[in-house]
Order: sequence, then structure tokens, then C-alpha cells
Amino acid sequence: MELELLNSIIPELKQNSSVLTGPGDDCAVVDCAGVKLLLAADSVTENIHFTADTAPELAGAKLVKRNLSDIAAMGGTPLWMLLTLADCGHDIQWLRKFVSGAEAAAEEFGVPITGGDTSSLHSPGFTASVTIIGRADTPVLRSGAKPGDILYVTGEIGNSFLSQHHLNFTPHLAEGRFLAKYANAMMDISDGLLLDAARMAAASNVDIFIDPQAVPLRSGAALLQALSDGEDYGLLFCCKQDIDMEKEFNKQNFPAKLTRIGCVRAGNGMVREFSTGRPFNLEHHGYEH
Amino acid sequence: MELELLNSIIPELKQNSSVLTGPGDDCAVVDCAGVKLLLAADSVTENIHFTADTAPELAGAKLVKRNLSDIAAMGGTPLWMLLTLADCGHDIQWLRKFVSGAEAAAEEFGVPITGGDTSSLHSPGFTASVTIIGRADTPVLRSGAKPGDILYVTGEIGNSFLSQHHLNFTPHLAEGRFLAKYANAMMDISDGLLLDAARMAAASNVDIFIDPQAVPLRSGAALLQALSDGEDYGLLFCCKQDIDMEKEFNKQNFPAKLTRIGCVRAGNGMVREFSTGRPFNLEHHGYEH
Repeated sequence: MELELLNSIIPELKQNSSVLTGPGDDCAVVDCAGVKLLLAADSVTENIHFTADTAPELAGAKLVKRNLSDIAAMGGTPLWMLLTLADCGHDIQWLRKFVSGAEAAAEEFGVPITGGDTSSLHSPGFTASVTIIGRADTPVLRSGAKPGDILYVTGEIGNSFLSQHHLNFTPHLAEGRFLAKYANAMMDISDGLLLDAARMAAASNVDIFIDPQAVPLRSGAALLQALSDGEDYGLLFCCKQDIDMEKEFNKQNFPAKLTRIGCVRAGNGMVREFSTGRPFNLEHHGYEH
Repeated sequence: MELELLNSIIPELKQNSSVLTGPGDDCAVVDCAGVKLLLAADSVTENIHFTADTAPELAGAKLVKRNLSDIAAMGGTPLWMLLTLADCGHDIQWLRKFVSGAEAAAEEFGVPITGGDTSSLHSPGFTASVTIIGRADTPVLRSGAKPGDILYVTGEIGNSFLSQHHLNFTPHLAEGRFLAKYANAMMDISDGLLLDAARMAAASNVDIFIDPQAVPLRSGAALLQALSDGEDYGLLFCCKQDIDMEKEFNKQNFPAKLTRIGCVRAGNGMVREFSTGRPFNLEHHGYEH
């Protein structure tokens, strides 16, 4: 997977003093005259993130919602987006529907698409990317998990593709903004719970313990598969154990539910099974695009 | 050209009150707590913007410089970029060189690449896009040309592909920032002088008169071809006739030269030959990607 190798280069790109948090988190954080801006870019590509028989409106909406989820993961508010498309082989009706699906999803969250670009691929295919710009007074990074924290997820895990959740999900923006007041670390679950938890554990230099029996499964999900399926788009976060997080969260009547699934202990980036302390085998769990 | 049809949709996307200038100019202008931010996105695609034998470092640099040129066109200062790639068929060495070429060009102008995304195309090809974020105290739009203004270009016109100018150009950022103090309208010349002048004329609801004999040709350029060739990346701008623009510009010792090529008169979006007043035939001049 050469592109995965390449993705490892992006966090190494040189930054300057205006960049408060560089590549590697859900968003970069930059200082704009005292405002903390969040910057992220995410793509959808045909045959990876959707299939030839996916309704183009849903594919366009998915692209926008993936980016909104990156802002949610920082506890931020989305402000503006730009859209780029590269295509070979779809007709103008399909392309218009893709853009109108993207626009409708953006409008639902009050975010204008302020520009973009289109180009022609040389052989059949379609890829589109959105860059999103948001803001957060106190962005929540994935690197802030502390030993003793309690680990939670919002929403459900697993069976995202067959259930069409990966197309129909709602990004947890309101939940993320609320949780920013409490969370020590937060990220969205896009590449599978275990793989994303491992990223939080590594970024925070702690071990994360997950109780598989506590993981809230989406209808139709099998446990082992659910731990490694991608595209859940809930939030994984941890906060201090003396906060009654369930009580605070439930007062808000968010559509998404909150579930306690584990805890954080001193360590060095491992994800372990809660009752036994055994490391999960990440080779077989987690999905990298 | 279905993607050209699609490009006509982007300017119609709904905006909100934070968007001071929506899609359709070189950059959108948005209000961020009183700071005017410039937002733009531009791509390079193999077989369109570069060829299979182009050095990948130069292709990556071109992508970054195309975006810097959009900031120059508004009289702005670039701040941050995000990079997305979609590929099928190049090896990791080629991809790394593309990214390092992009990074070197960004670093030359002090702009960090703060993040990005990579994905796999289904059939052979390569496309990459950059979103750039900049700022300008007084962004110069293409819509501000006034009857009586004098029309200028920076740099030279024509023969960009054969001369490799399209890979080796330097975006006119310093020139653009300086000119922002004087220009009523400004844009970069990316799709051919006549086509871009027609866009300025239409956005400003004026006629633009160009003297073909005055157009500064790049070495090896033939006049008629030069008027329609793309990828010049100089600035096209106009300012009030009582400004001694040559004198002010030449004091700055910019590497790019300034040339007076015409004027602006009352009208409704036509580009006309200076001496005869006849409209140029845009069907045969100007290159749309």
C-alpha cells in the first residue's frame, strides 16, 4: 500500500510558528490573529468509499460529512469548505447530483462551499476531496489522554457498510462541541475502533484498555468484525474519572448515545483487552484506506 | 466538456454572510473575526497539467505555485496549504518526489503544508489538489475595472508549455501585494490572456481593449497563439490612468516586468482590439482546462 507509506510523509512536512498543531490529528490547528482555525482535507474515491451503484447524492454528502466529522473530533465548529473533483466517465447528471448532495449536506450544517476546482482524469474513475476550515476555542487533540481517564464512544460500532451507515450517518458536531468541555483527548472513529484507539494511545503515550463486551454494536454487527470495521464516525474520547459523563451527556438529549467502553492507564501506545490486559492484535483489526 | 459545465455550477453554490466574495474570483474572501481570509483550490492532473515524462518534483512544485498565483492575484499573502493526492500506478519514489517538490515550493514562500489526504484511483492516473488559505487587508477582485483604467500585465505571454515556463514560473506574490495598492481589478493569467481578460470584462461589466502589438511575448511565442495559450501566471490588472504605474512599479525592482497593453472602456463584457475596436473571437483564443 504505497499511499499508506506516503501518508506517513505528510506528518513530517515542515511547519512554522503559526501552526499550533501540525498534520497527524483529525485537523491541523493554526493561529489566525488569535482565532484557532481547524484545517482538514478528506476524499472519497469510487470503488473505495462508495460503489458504482451508490446514489451520487449520497456519495457527495458522505464526502462533506467525513470532513464535518473531522471538525467534530476537535470539538469545533465548521465554517467553510472547498470542493475539488477529478473524473473520467460520469455524465454531467451524475456529477451535478454528486455536487448537489455535497451542497445539501453542507447547507444542513450551515457551511458554505466557497469554491473548488474540477479536472479530467485520463482513465475511468472518480475522486473528490473537500478541504474544511473550522474553529474551536479549545481544540481537543488525540494526544491528551491521561492515565486514570475513562474511555467513551458516541454512537454505535460496526456493520457500517452493509447497513449503509457509512452513507447515512450524521457527524457528531453538537456532541463534539459539548464534549470539548470535558474531554482530555478526542478523535472520530473512521478506520476502526481498535486502530483509532491505537492512534490515540500512541499520540498520548499511554495504554488504552477496551472492554469488548461494552462496545455498543450497530444492528447486524459481529463483535470481532465491529472492532476493526471502519467508517463508524462516532467520537472516541476520554475524560477524568471524577466527571459523571453519562449524566452530563444525557442531560443534553443528543440523538447519539454515549457508552463507556474502557479506560486509560500508563503505558506506551498499546490497546489492551480490559479484563486480561492482553494487547489486541491490530494486524487483524482495523481498516486503513 | 462536462467538467466545464460542472464548473459553472460552483459559482451558484449558496453562501452565507461570512462569505464576502463567493466562488468565481481567483479566491473566495471570507471574514474571520475581522481578518479577510482568501480561500482557493487548484489541481494538477497527469496528461493535462504535466506529462508522464515531467519530473515529479516539478509537477508538485507547479501545483503549489498555481495556488500561490491565485493568492498573488488577490494581492494577498499565503498562509497555509493542504494537499490531497489520488493515484494509481506511480511508485512510492515518484510520489515522494512529487510531495517533496510541493514542499520545497511551499517552503520557498514560507507556507507550511499543514495536512492532506491520499487515496487510490481504480485505474491508472494521478491527480492532486492543493487548498490554499491566505489573507489580504484589501483583496483585489476581478470585478473592479472602471472605464478609463489602463490595462497592464506582469511578466510575459505565450509559449509556456514548450519553454517549460508552466513548470518553472515564479508566482508574482510580491508584485501582487504591491499592486493591490493601485489596482482596481486584478487576476492571474492562467487560461490565456484573451479568455482571462474576457472574464475580467464580464465580472466588471466593462469592455477591455487590448493592443496585440503591445503584448510582451515570451521567447519563441507567436502572437496569435500567445493570446490564447494558457499557463502564463503573470498578473492582469488595471488601474486609474492618472497613476504613473510604470514608474512606481519599476522603483521596486521586481524580477517581473510590467507592460501596458490596453485600457478599459464602458461596455458589457467584450474584449476588443485596441486600434479597430473589433471584438476578438474568443472561440479560437483561450484555453479552458
